[in-house]
Amino acid sequence: MEQGNLFVISAPSGAGKTTLCRRLLEQISGISFSISYTTRNPRQGEFDGVDYHFVSRDRFEEMVSTNSFLEWARVYDNFYGTRKSEVLSRLELGEDVLLDIDVQGASQVRRLFPEAILIFLLPPSWSLLEDRLRGRGTEDSSRLKLRMANAKSELEAVHKYDFAVINDDLSRATEDLKSIVIAQRCRTPRTLARQGLVQDLKSS
Amino acid sequence: MEQGNLFVISAPSGAGKTTLCRRLLEQISGISFSISYTTRNPRQGEFDGVDYHFVSRDRFEEMVSTNSFLEWARVYDNFYGTRKSEVLSRLELGEDVLLDIDVQGASQVRRLFPEAILIFLLPPSWSLLEDRLRGRGTEDSSRLKLRMANAKSELEAVHKYDFAVINDDLSRATEDLKSIVIAQRCRTPRTLARQGLVQDLKSS
Repeated sequence: MEQGNLFVISAPSGAGKTTLCRRLLEQISGISFSISYTTRNPRQGEFDGVDYHFVSRDRFEEMVSTNSFLEWARVYDNFYGTRKSEVLSRLELGEDVLLDIDVQGASQVRRLFPEAILIFLLPPSWSLLEDRLRGRGTEDSSRLKLRMANAKSELEAVHKYDFAVINDDLSRATEDLKSIVIAQRCRTPRTLARQGLVQDLKSS
Repeated sequence: MEQGNLFVISAPSGAGKTTLCRRLLEQISGISFSISYTTRNPRQGEFDGVDYHFVSRDRFEEMVSTNSFLEWARVYDNFYGTRKSEVLSRLELGEDVLLDIDVQGASQVRRLFPEAILIFLLPPSWSLLEDRLRGRGTEDSSRLKLRMANAKSELEAVHKYDFAVINDDLSRATEDLKSIVIAQRCRTPRTLARQGLVQDLKSS
């Protein structure tokens, strides 16, 4: 059986990644999120084991020291990480896995998994990104500035990604993302693994 | 402006390529066939300049000698070729071009255009392929055998193709093909060329 594909999606905050990923998973089967580990506190409406595995700083550091993470990163004052065993076991079952991680994490994944497919989600414009970050309303002014500066530097990373999707229209962007996933499933080795056709033809 | 993508689709006869390509072009814009040149006679319902450019053997050989073809091949007693200038001018306008050519032609294209995207269409099973070839009713028995042997050897070429699509269900196969085309348009350099976004962000 052919392995599943590992997709990584990154975006500056405010680019609409969460909504888009949710849409993708509603419209397509055989792909699921790997749930990240984080030391940050849950936001309202977030649940442990659903949105993140929320863990203490001590627990996180223990996992780092036992080499349990496929990638991990510090973002502002918090740590985020993807557990290796969770991802690998699903890929081996032929399922696709989606990682929603930042550009630091994505480059760690690329090093360990050169065959990972990296997708960057772009906001349609800079001013819209600023509006969206402001609109979230959870940021005070200095924090907003920090996020904007960070978004700008994250955008430079787009050139390291295989695909770039512009989130100017939710339906179109969802369609783009879906197409990227479906197309990868049509790569020759994966199609041939799915079907015993070529063997069948050879022996006929 | 970023160049369009060059897609090549090949299939053993009877795999349902013609119907599938027609569906694709109905459902998606910005991509069109390059019309091949051929020395074979038109079949019923085929028109010059629509299905093929039908030319004499002398004219075809003249075009070969002036290096006018991106690829050309002899299939049975007939010659088929793709005119270079027709393809290149459309790619330069940022349009995608689809070539419906056999495995010999595809490998010539790959040599000249390493960035061409090669798609192989597979019949769902060998027995179904035989049924379809028989059902066409245009082949006598020895010709059918020749076509079957040829189909078998063509199938070996699938490993040289980037993508393989199984035509077991017309809607799903169309969806697969469409996804391959859309996904290629989401490759990072092409997305960035389409949008001046990154420049816009840098200068903001």
